[in-house]
Amino acid sequence: MATTQSAPDAYSQLLAQCREISLLSGTSALLAWDQETLMPKGAGERRAEQLALLASLVHERATAPRLAELLAKSRDDVARDGDPDGERAAVLRELQRDFDRATRLPASLVTELARTESQAQQAWAEARQRSDFAGFRPWLERMVALQQQKADCLAIAGATRWDALADLYEPGMRAADLRRLFGPLRTRLVALRERLADGERPDDTFQRTRIDAERQRGFVREVVAAMGFDFDRGRLDTSAHPFCTSIAGDVRLTTRFHDDNVLDALGSTMHEGGHGLYEQGLPREPFGSPLGEAVSLGIHESQSRLWENHVGRSAAFWQWCWPVAQRHLGAACDGQSAQSVHALSNLVAPSLIRVEADEATYDLHVMVRFELEQGLIGGDLPVAELPQRWNALYRDHLGVEVPDDRRGCLQDVHWSCGLFGYFPTYTLGNLYAAQFAAAADQALGGLAPLLAKGEFAPLREWLRENVHRHGRRYLPAELCQRATGAALSSEPFLAYLERKLFDVYGVA
Amino acid sequence: MATTQSAPDAYSQLLAQCREISLLSGTSALLAWDQETLMPKGAGERRAEQLALLASLVHERATAPRLAELLAKSRDDVARDGDPDGERAAVLRELQRDFDRATRLPASLVTELARTESQAQQAWAEARQRSDFAGFRPWLERMVALQQQKADCLAIAGATRWDALADLYEPGMRAADLRRLFGPLRTRLVALRERLADGERPDDTFQRTRIDAERQRGFVREVVAAMGFDFDRGRLDTSAHPFCTSIAGDVRLTTRFHDDNVLDALGSTMHEGGHGLYEQGLPREPFGSPLGEAVSLGIHESQSRLWENHVGRSAAFWQWCWPVAQRHLGAACDGQSAQSVHALSNLVAPSLIRVEADEATYDLHVMVRFELEQGLIGGDLPVAELPQRWNALYRDHLGVEVPDDRRGCLQDVHWSCGLFGYFPTYTLGNLYAAQFAAAADQALGGLAPLLAKGEFAPLREWLRENVHRHGRRYLPAELCQRATGAALSSEPFLAYLERKLFDVYGVA
Repeated sequence: MATTQSAPDAYSQLLAQCREISLLSGTSALLAWDQETLMPKGAGERRAEQLALLASLVHERATAPRLAELLAKSRDDVARDGDPDGERAAVLRELQRDFDRATRLPASLVTELARTESQAQQAWAEARQRSDFAGFRPWLERMVALQQQKADCLAIAGATRWDALADLYEPGMRAADLRRLFGPLRTRLVALRERLADGERPDDTFQRTRIDAERQRGFVREVVAAMGFDFDRGRLDTSAHPFCTSIAGDVRLTTRFHDDNVLDALGSTMHEGGHGLYEQGLPREPFGSPLGEAVSLGIHESQSRLWENHVGRSAAFWQWCWPVAQRHLGAACDGQSAQSVHALSNLVAPSLIRVEADEATYDLHVMVRFELEQGLIGGDLPVAELPQRWNALYRDHLGVEVPDDRRGCLQDVHWSCGLFGYFPTYTLGNLYAAQFAAAADQALGGLAPLLAKGEFAPLREWLRENVHRHGRRYLPAELCQRATGAALSSEPFLAYLERKLFDVYGVA
Repeated sequence: MATTQSAPDAYSQLLAQCREISLLSGTSALLAWDQETLMPKGAGERRAEQLALLASLVHERATAPRLAELLAKSRDDVARDGDPDGERAAVLRELQRDFDRATRLPASLVTELARTESQAQQAWAEARQRSDFAGFRPWLERMVALQQQKADCLAIAGATRWDALADLYEPGMRAADLRRLFGPLRTRLVALRERLADGERPDDTFQRTRIDAERQRGFVREVVAAMGFDFDRGRLDTSAHPFCTSIAGDVRLTTRFHDDNVLDALGSTMHEGGHGLYEQGLPREPFGSPLGEAVSLGIHESQSRLWENHVGRSAAFWQWCWPVAQRHLGAACDGQSAQSVHALSNLVAPSLIRVEADEATYDLHVMVRFELEQGLIGGDLPVAELPQRWNALYRDHLGVEVPDDRRGCLQDVHWSCGLFGYFPTYTLGNLYAAQFAAAADQALGGLAPLLAKGEFAPLREWLRENVHRHGRRYLPAELCQRATGAALSSEPFLAYLERKLFDVYGVA
């Protein structure tokens, strides 16, 4: 070793900086978690100030010139001393990416984006309530223009503006690749939707049965504990919109309880539980290292969708789960069976609203947004024409007529927050989930017999070994190749979905 | 005005700095609150790192040389431009005090104190468990030596070392003044204790009645809401040790529920509720200004003790409260009455443990510590002689024999945390509370008729007007003079206590 004990080397100093940044980010996460779960409503204004201050402290550290020096010095050290397992090189690659992202946007643009996002989000909320696209249009135009500027600052050689934005959420993802994945996916999903329309619709009585929130809580808590969520390093609470967040390694899930929809609570909890298992499965030390962080939104979503759908909507899972449900939910379960509730959990009903979509039509909602974003950011689609194009795509992809913009192009908050290039990660999550589930199924000699006994540990450990423990060591495409032996494809997802739904709907 | 709009003047810049410091302190408060109420146990280590990082960020800002410049410049501006209402002068006086305190301790001493406090607290916890004073003795010796060094750094002209430490908690408080207050107080409290021993002990059946925690929660929540605690800017939760904290203006109380002691839950909640009303009654803007902060621990404690004792242990209060209790607690109230429970809430039983002490003997526990601290910090009492002196004072003041050090001089955490000069603020709180209650009683034409009807607003508004709204504008002694027309005396407290307890015990 060329360094002495008395002065930590550049790499150690770099990791110490990362640790501090992560401690601050985790503090922000607690402020935000508390805001969504417990904070009294009168505290909102000061909480926003606290969050802004913490964000500025993180930004200050993430863009410190000292960081660039330490990165350069560490690279020299690695070149000289070697890096047998490639770990340091991966850490430096990811930290350089973070540093570049954080420093490429001029301060004036960051400020302008922050202000516009805040105002546009308010304008969106009002416009949505009144179904008034004209009221939101100038804000969306302004936001698109700012996102184009942002994309130019983040420019990636050989990639489009949209790619530069999407790369923030899914490193390495390009629109051209997505088109290759999405083309056949759309065709088969539209065909599936049409085919199921002739099938036998599951009975939905159970979904309308009123069940006390405390009973629901006990039920979903037992399920997420059985999945292996560690309550010594995590919590489960309630919030209006379920989410998962990590507060310096303490992972918190939220779910919600409706009087009459225990399957929504179960699905939300298993979904967030999947995110939570990923967070709990990341390497804990060195804290703040990219190797202890999630690699992308698509991979994160794959973990949630795998548990929510491949486990939670499988016939095998319901063999185990139904007695658990009966024990917690009591008389509400009368007249139902593992089979009937499994079928209900796979109800397909094309709808107008993405967040209410079923497993078979969800990705069609995403594809509508993907196409429209290409046009908006690429400059081919004027904002003024958005509603008309939106409605046409819904007719084409989902076979539904959009009655108003509230239930049309004003339904999502994302664009008003400046999130362009984000939506496809939902579908990538579904595709990765299916490919991981298939690989795990093969590796474990069949998942179904395990799920039927409530033995979730083998699946969880497979995910831990093949996905979680790598953190950001590999880019998502390489991670997928290593874990499943193949590049990402829509085939495992389609095969899984058709097999299951044809069976449930009796249209095989 | 000599300043222009384009560049904020020094005073505004100073307040902006205060705001940032308070946003960070409030963030620390949330980290700490969460740690005591909700945090999963596996998150403790990283949470400690987060708290240490936030503390260093606050310290960095509180000791920034820029602050000294802004203070000097602001003083010049005030001298030139005038300060008709004296507000700026008060702010600058308090900020200078904070700055001096923060900068007078050399970094090496701060580090040494932090390390020793952490280790001594662990050593204390182990020593207490084993009742092993010898194990704690070297730590206490080290701590006393460090506190003496600290006192020398903080030295106040014409005051003792102990005074310099106590001034951190109660600005302006001196041991000589306390001796004048405490002398007659001790004599009369000892006499009161002896007199009550011949009286009629209240029936304590109610205290042993098991009551479901959810019922207790509903009850104490209604009481604290009736006191005027604003749940739109506050919460009530549970923790092992009740406390009140303010997270950037969002005030959070905790209480605790034992199966068999609803009066403990009520007392704790009213106590913390009193702290909470003070915090909620402080001026909200400019946020971070000393005028929006509590003036001292003694005044803070006066607000909690006033609601806990002068309200919550009064016969008039129980006239209103008993039907409320019956509504929430149901059958547990059978066989009791407002009178019997009021009497029980005033049970006097000299004990070994300060935190379990009743209203009549609590201050005797405090005085034991006050005397011993004088000796320890002043150098007249070797640490080795502490247990023997402690036990002698308990025999003298409280009439009890201390069986072991666990229930003797090892019972409190304070000294191991470096809190010397802190204990007397508890008794000051009791004295201030009685003097404020008497003044409010006079100003409002009698408190009892209001309390009997559950009309708490006049009392709360009197406190808001005379205490809360001033923040740190006046030092505690001046605040007391302004609010009550007299210097602090033990007479109102003794008069109140004797009147009430002679009546309850039938020894008038």
